[in-house]
Amino acid sequence: MTWWDEQTWANMVAGENCGMCQNVALESNPFSDLVAVLDHSYVRLARNQTHAGYCLVILKEHATELHALDTATLAGFWAGVARAGRAIDDTLHPTKIDYFVMGHRMPHVHCHLYPQHLTDDPFRNPDISDGDTALTLEATRSRVTQLQLALQAQHR
Amino acid sequence: MTWWDEQTWANMVAGENCGMCQNVALESNPFSDLVAVLDHSYVRLARNQTHAGYCLVILKEHATELHALDTATLAGFWAGVARAGRAIDDTLHPTKIDYFVMGHRMPHVHCHLYPQHLTDDPFRNPDISDGDTALTLEATRSRVTQLQLALQAQHR
Repeated sequence: MTWWDEQTWANMVAGENCGMCQNVALESNPFSDLVAVLDHSYVRLARNQTHAGYCLVILKEHATELHALDTATLAGFWAGVARAGRAIDDTLHPTKIDYFVMGHRMPHVHCHLYPQHLTDDPFRNPDISDGDTALTLEATRSRVTQLQLALQAQHR
Repeated sequence: MTWWDEQTWANMVAGENCGMCQNVALESNPFSDLVAVLDHSYVRLARNQTHAGYCLVILKEHATELHALDTATLAGFWAGVARAGRAIDDTLHPTKIDYFVMGHRMPHVHCHLYPQHLTDDPFRNPDISDGDTALTLEATRSRVTQLQLALQAQHR
């Protein structure tokens, strides 16, 4: 398969019916649960926790490419990603965190924070579609709370 | 295989014999060719041009995680990535650019700018090890020059 046809892609880029715009602020959606609202972004815990701590940081505004953002928004977005990364580090102690910005199906700037743990093979390029480890509702709430506390602790 | 043993990883994180520190400023190394030196980073054209325009933006200093960087360095690094992305966009007109920060084998902050073109399948999660398209020396120099001109044009 090749890329979206020109008109479909133009509509996606323009933000028509953008699923992220619609669902980013919900406490829960089919893909993730809300952790925090930062200055320029939302932090959400991915439902797939095969890589424990996997979170998304999603820009508040609809934009497709990093170079479309003004200087303050670009810096603020990545400051938010770094804050979320630090919270994941403090909470789940991964050995490394990977960061992926794609958006082929959802062209709205967002970053996948994809932790690598001691059980992961460092020679394997990660794929965010790996595994389907879903936590129980209770465990999800517990992880969200842990991350919230870690983010709040950064302000003290 | 699981992650590097504790001592090996600690040495890599500390920057002992870091290949990026050693080779980032060379005009050519086995993986890439120098395009530009920005305030906080080096921009290099990857040797593997299966995804035309594939570049790396590599932090000048040795650091492993985004959240280890101070605010100005973090913002400056991503400003450089955005500049490189804009230059790729202006030069090779991809339909989308992906950005990957990993560093499992080379834990020195760097971003893969991985262009997607109309011939790419948007439903496939990209893997930077795909393909092995190497340009001729002349074509490499031409692409480096095009990107340099696009970066310089940003200052006008």
